[in-house]
Amino acid sequence: MVSFTYLRPAIAASLLLDISSASCAHGTHLARRSTYSTLNARNELEKRVDVSTFGYHGLTGPTNWDALDPANSACSAGRTQSPIDLTGGSVKTIAGNTLNITMSDVATTELENLGSTVEVIMAGKGASITIDGKTFNMAQYHFHTPSEHTIDGEYFPLEMHMVHQAADSSISVLAVPFQLSTDGSTTETVTASMAGLAEITTPGTLTEVTALPLSKLATALSAQTFSTYSGSLTTPPCTEGITFYVATKPMAMDVATYNSIKAVVGFNSRFVQNAPGGVNVLASSRSMKSKKTKKTKAEVAKPYGGQ
Amino acid sequence: MVSFTYLRPAIAASLLLDISSASCAHGTHLARRSTYSTLNARNELEKRVDVSTFGYHGLTGPTNWDALDPANSACSAGRTQSPIDLTGGSVKTIAGNTLNITMSDVATTELENLGSTVEVIMAGKGASITIDGKTFNMAQYHFHTPSEHTIDGEYFPLEMHMVHQAADSSISVLAVPFQLSTDGSTTETVTASMAGLAEITTPGTLTEVTALPLSKLATALSAQTFSTYSGSLTTPPCTEGITFYVATKPMAMDVATYNSIKAVVGFNSRFVQNAPGGVNVLASSRSMKSKKTKKTKAEVAKPYGGQ
Repeated sequence: MVSFTYLRPAIAASLLLDISSASCAHGTHLARRSTYSTLNARNELEKRVDVSTFGYHGLTGPTNWDALDPANSACSAGRTQSPIDLTGGSVKTIAGNTLNITMSDVATTELENLGSTVEVIMAGKGASITIDGKTFNMAQYHFHTPSEHTIDGEYFPLEMHMVHQAADSSISVLAVPFQLSTDGSTTETVTASMAGLAEITTPGTLTEVTALPLSKLATALSAQTFSTYSGSLTTPPCTEGITFYVATKPMAMDVATYNSIKAVVGFNSRFVQNAPGGVNVLASSRSMKSKKTKKTKAEVAKPYGGQ
Repeated sequence: MVSFTYLRPAIAASLLLDISSASCAHGTHLARRSTYSTLNARNELEKRVDVSTFGYHGLTGPTNWDALDPANSACSAGRTQSPIDLTGGSVKTIAGNTLNITMSDVATTELENLGSTVEVIMAGKGASITIDGKTFNMAQYHFHTPSEHTIDGEYFPLEMHMVHQAADSSISVLAVPFQLSTDGSTTETVTASMAGLAEITTPGTLTEVTALPLSKLATALSAQTFSTYSGSLTTPPCTEGITFYVATKPMAMDVATYNSIKAVVGFNSRFVQNAPGGVNVLASSRSMKSKKTKKTKAEVAKPYGGQ
């Protein structure tokens, strides 16, 4: 595990070149994110990545994302927003093998702490899905804790989003919920991806991760079933027209890895949205504002709901 | 464990008397909740409890609680709403022994599935806290999953709310976050409380629970430190003036119990509110509606955040 907190000549050159040269589709949810180099407290050159400007609490949280930037208007106005509750029969399900999931083991890549999530860079690593003859290449995968999608109202401790993009810029997300195992069994791809987590506890830091067994994951997912629907980015700007494929069967996760991800990432799950086509839950809430009525005497006398 | 799904003469009499006679402060968050009897599919008399009218998803979820009832206006207008993020130094901390926590082991009581949570009835069981000479009696305790309060931005898998009320109707909540243990260790009071969970998977059902080791919990909590602040009910009607005491150190929880609670309750955590005194996050969001601007050409051309 190379942490970039010390200066090696070969790396230094690449770091300097890296300034503002982040590849397309590099960073959370395919926004262009710049990496840059900075001197740390020990006067060493350190590679950093820009952190997200949105958050999950208070005034930068999901109820206020549209207020952060006019470009985020879909967050409060869109009618096919993600995540959603996946209840039996509400959306189509398809067999995993129809997605033609291709992933090779990854020898080395980057793990980044974007503030809003931790993310593994997959651009150029050859992972893809192909649906109806159209290929989407995996740009990155990142984690939400707790899960964003729910299944019959139940959430899961972790959800992995593998973000894929086609040549025409359209986006597909392969999403996998994780359930904690009682026997310590786990999904090796996740634990291997998070091996460098202790080195990137500060938002904006990044490290190298090695030997990611993604081919195993591809095999497991190909044997799965997926719920699929047209939704949105679950982070600003909440762009719609994103196709989700959410595994119907959560994969196993061990407590130690879960606790460590949760400690670094904190809470980073957008609240569940209305069913596709329904009014945006924030728009609905706001339309009520003008209908506010004064409390009746009886209501004032029963401040605790009629007690 | 008596499940009330069969008819015994002694119980039947109490069931019939129970119709609309629920004690004050019985039910979630001290709202008066009625229990009643109904014939089940096997023509047996079955005791039930009213379920909550609010939810945690879509149009009945936390972003829309104020739209469900004008009495819920504090949910979107209040400035001391709960839960909040507890960051070092943001609120006062006190030693647990200053709360004079009193809890005896409970021989038998009710566990109810209210749809919005699962709740153990503690009215009349003698549990209390006494602060500055004022005594608050425990009415019930219930669970939120994942936790509602966060500590330095981190959430926890479970949060227990022990709701206490004084003679003057004022309310104090003793809140305890739980962290999953890697070695299977757990908090006996929680596992004992949930022993009948499999019998109440349907909202509105209830069962008996026995032998709850609450005195152990009281001892553990008395040795803890608590963050304290004046907040609100975390469910409709979001009434303010509620004093929270949130344990600063999460207690241990085993995966099997956590998974079973999560499967029955689903997601039931209100999103984190602004710091006490700050503008309500929903009110802030709504005030932006009138400031919406049309997308510029550049924004339309960069639907994925500048990629």
